[in-house]
Parts: sequence; C-alpha cells; structure tokens
Amino acid sequence: MGLRALREAIVSYLGPARGVRGTADQVMIVSGSQQALDICTRALLKPASQLWMEEPGYRFARQVFLLNNCRIVPVPVDGNGLDVAAGMDRCRTAQAVLVTPSHQYPLGFTMSASRRLELLDWAERSRAWILEDDYDSEYRYENMPISSLQGLDPNGRVIYLGTFSKVLFPSLRLGYIVIPHELVPRFQAVRVAMDISPPTFPQAVLADFIGEDHFSRHIRRMRSLYCERRDALLHHLSPLFGSRLKITGQQAGMHLCVFLNRIDDLEVARRAASSKLWLVPLSSSYAGKGIRQGFILGYGSTSVEQMAGAVRKLQVAIDA
Amino acid sequence: MGLRALREAIVSYLGPARGVRGTADQVMIVSGSQQALDICTRALLKPASQLWMEEPGYRFARQVFLLNNCRIVPVPVDGNGLDVAAGMDRCRTAQAVLVTPSHQYPLGFTMSASRRLELLDWAERSRAWILEDDYDSEYRYENMPISSLQGLDPNGRVIYLGTFSKVLFPSLRLGYIVIPHELVPRFQAVRVAMDISPPTFPQAVLADFIGEDHFSRHIRRMRSLYCERRDALLHHLSPLFGSRLKITGQQAGMHLCVFLNRIDDLEVARRAASSKLWLVPLSSSYAGKGIRQGFILGYGSTSVEQMAGAVRKLQVAIDA
Repeated sequence: MGLRALREAIVSYLGPARGVRGTADQVMIVSGSQQALDICTRALLKPASQLWMEEPGYRFARQVFLLNNCRIVPVPVDGNGLDVAAGMDRCRTAQAVLVTPSHQYPLGFTMSASRRLELLDWAERSRAWILEDDYDSEYRYENMPISSLQGLDPNGRVIYLGTFSKVLFPSLRLGYIVIPHELVPRFQAVRVAMDISPPTFPQAVLADFIGEDHFSRHIRRMRSLYCERRDALLHHLSPLFGSRLKITGQQAGMHLCVFLNRIDDLEVARRAASSKLWLVPLSSSYAGKGIRQGFILGYGSTSVEQMAGAVRKLQVAIDA
Repeated sequence: MGLRALREAIVSYLGPARGVRGTADQVMIVSGSQQALDICTRALLKPASQLWMEEPGYRFARQVFLLNNCRIVPVPVDGNGLDVAAGMDRCRTAQAVLVTPSHQYPLGFTMSASRRLELLDWAERSRAWILEDDYDSEYRYENMPISSLQGLDPNGRVIYLGTFSKVLFPSLRLGYIVIPHELVPRFQAVRVAMDISPPTFPQAVLADFIGEDHFSRHIRRMRSLYCERRDALLHHLSPLFGSRLKITGQQAGMHLCVFLNRIDDLEVARRAASSKLWLVPLSSSYAGKGIRQGFILGYGSTSVEQMAGAVRKLQVAIDA
C-alpha cells in the first residue's frame, strides 16, 4: 500500500482540505493518476466492460482503458459538469465512470451539487463505480474549493484519485488512491502482482515535507504565483482575440481552455511547436463526434515576463 | 523509456558483464522485474495465451501472468535448467517462456549451453518469446559468469530483464528491459498507457552511481561479503543436518536451496517466523504436482556473526 507515514500525512491533508473520508488503511500510494486508473480498472472491471468518460476528457485515460479492453462511452459535459441524464440515455448499465468534478479536464467546469447527487444516485442504483480524479483542486483562485464527491458518498461507490504531479511536479511520480474499505484487498492483490510496491525513499521525503508543513506553505506560495500567471495570460489574450475567443476553466488549476472557430488546432499546434510554444489541441480531448477546435493552455511553468511573448507566438501560429 | 543517461550506463555495463547486445534505444527503465513482466505480457501476449514457467519457479511471476489471464504451463527443471523437451511435450505451441538461465530461481542451477540452443531453436520455430530474467547474475563465487541467453540469440526472440533489486536494494524499485529493436514501439505504447514514465530523480542518481564507478566497486565489495555469508551458512548447516540435507544453488546469488524430506515446510516457516527467522518454503514455488519440501534460504542480509544463531533457529523450528 505504500509507506505508512505518507499515507497518514495524506489522510490528515485530505480530510480538512478536500472533505475526503477514510483512514490510512484505505490509502494506496501509486506512481500517479495513470497507474491509479490502471489499478482501478484491473481491480474493478472485466474486459469489455462499458465505462463513461467525459467528452471532451483526459486523453491519456482513454489509453489505459483501451489497454484493459474496456469500451468507452463518451458522455457530454456542460457548464454543470458531466451530463448524467445523457449518460443514462447512452448506456444506463455502464460499470464505471471517470469524472473530474472539481475542475473538469479540459473545460475547467465545476460539477454542480445536483449533478453530483444525480451521479451518486445512478452509481448506487447500477452498482457502478465512480472514479473521481481530483488532479488539481489545490489551486483555486476566486471562490472556496468545493468538497470532493467522495465525501458526499454514503455508499462506498467512489474511488478517489489524487496526484502530486500538479501540486508538486510530474517526474516525482507519486499519487494515491483512497479505496472504499471493502475493496482494499482486491486493490492490494492487483498492486502486488503489477509491481510489488512503490519506491520507499521519495515517499519518506514527501511524508516529511507534508508533516513539517512545507507542503501547505508551498501550496499557498504557488497559488499566488499561478494566479499571477493566469492573470497575465488572460490580460494578453483578450486584446489579441477579442470576441472571437471563448475561455473556460480559468477559476482554478494551471490551465485554461480557449475555443477558436475556423482553425485546425492540430496544424496550429504543429506550427507553434516550431517556435517552441507547446500547445495541447482541444480536439485531441474528444473521443466521439462533435469535436471542437481550440487549445488547452497550460500556464504553470510560464513566467509573467514570458507571457506576452508566448501569446504573440500563439497569434502568429494562428494567423499563418 | 526512462532517463537517457541511465539507459546508456546500463548498456555499457551489460555488454562486457553479461554479453547482452543492444543500444540505449532498446532499454526501458521499469520499477523492477515484476513491472517488466507485466509490460512484456501486455505487449506480447493476448489473454488466454499459454506460457511455460519453470517448475519450481518464481511465485510472484505466476501472479502477474494470472492477472493478465495467461495460462501457465509448468515445465520441470533439472540440473541443466529448463527441460525444453518436456516443455514441447506439454505444450509445443506456447507463445512464451519465462526462464532464469544464469541462476535458476529457486533451485540455483545454470542452464547448460545445449539447453540454451534448444530453447532458442524452439522459440524461433514457434515464433515464441523468451523472457530472460537475469535477476542476480552479478554475484557468482566460483566459476566465471556465463553470458546471457540474449547474447546468443540471432533472431530477436529474447527479451532481457534486469533489476537493481538484488545488486543494490529492492525498495529502490528500478530495473530494465532490453527489448528487441522491432518491438520497442509496442512496449512504449503499453508503458505510456500504464504509468507514463519512471521517476526521474532516482534514475539520475543511479546513472551517476554507475558512471562514477561506484557501482562496479559496490559489486566487488558485496561479492566478497556475500561469499563470506554463504560460506558461514554452509559451515553451520552441514554438521546439523548431515546427510539428510541436499543443497543446490550455492554457486551464485544471495540464496541457496535446501531440500528436506518428511517435513511440512509451510508449518516450519510459520514456527520459525515466531522466532523472527524468515524462511521461504520451497513448496510455494511449485504450481503443479510433484511438490518438494525445503527452504529457499536468503543469506544476503544476515551477517557472519548472526549466522550460527539463525541456523539454530531453523533446527529448532524443524525439530519442534
């Protein structure tokens, strides 16, 4: 399951910060959300299981579900998050759903309270599993963070996934799963067969980093830094694109989403890469039809000073 | 695939030390043999594929093959290693085989040259894959190390697995796969879907550790230390058990295997654990019938001074 000290530090953090319920016995340390999804799929789903995914959604998650021979049912997302009614229309008997309720990836919407209750209700009636990926809830700029879906669930249908890839850095390869109590042995059996256990040393360092309060200081410091970077990005984007531009998801996280009509986002991303601007095309986040064009703009590692130049490169790549 | 510097350091080590052929482009860093087997299985084998395993063999490998819904065909081992003819009798059309040719786990035999050629020939004719787990070849006490099977293979049928769990320590969680050139894209696709990439920091430390020559010094120092521990274990074992005891695999590695008639090795291991002596029962390494009783005695972390006391605990547990 991972180093006890780290699992305890995670539980102490998640309760107050995210409203997640559970004990250290339910926390499994993993190498990130990707491995978490792999373990969940192997522990909970048979091959050919049907699974709802947000549309648009996290493109790497599709890969791990396809590796496990699951059948993906794309379910549309609107300003209130996953459209649960649409999911039931398309496939009421799905065995699981992957959702990002705090900050939908990539559009950035927060799932509304009524949708949360609807989703929990569907999961309980269908005996389906909810995989809640809470990948970047630490950084929220205007309103108070909304609690996790896991904390609302009285029935043990939610598996909560967290990662240190966003709040610290991706190459650390540390994340965690909070597992409903009765599922712990199934998850353990899969984990030990896959790769025995996570490396001890980075877990011990991280446990101390959290326990000695560096982690909460880091979050406070980075929240204000990322907020400045987001403001700089918005400041430079609006005059250039004006009314052509629709932006979503700027309230939290380290990316926002821009919609652009009449462009080929894959082609623009290729052009931008030649000037060393790395864009994630929005169209790559769609599994079905009704693809929209635009970009997922990550601003986490671009300083305020670099922002104007980066936006200019974006404009050049679009206009070319 | 992992950090380039570490992959290059591994290639420079493996060529002279193990006769392994290949470039850094063929080396994938993994978290250990267990994850290596998982990636190999997912990249190469369909569900319900049949696979030869040494009997007795590595019990954790069974778990990862069963997780991937493979069908295991136990193939007996004798003093020359895997009995290839027996494997062909049992299942000529198996799609893969897992072998430990340098130091068979758990019996400790080295696979003979003629058996190696027989196995390579079968694999080439059957289009089967050979997974060569070379888990502890660094520590060999009497004769010169025999080269890897991979180095003998002209046809790209061998996937070579190495680990730092034995030569350094298990909680480091670092190992590697040397992949036949044309299979690299299939392995990459599986790896990225499973867990994106290995953590960067420990790879960078290990690359320096090898590059600055600490690794080869460590191997020399530990080889003489483990040799002393092995000698101490043999010295204390023989007077106590005399002719009742058959020992195999003492020429290399950090364990040897003792066969004992008329005991229940699971029960003895339970008794020994109550006096804090940790025994691996030999019977747990068998998947089929014809189970033999005894113990896999790991001496790597027992000092020469502690050895007499440990052997005494073993005798007490057996006599009880």
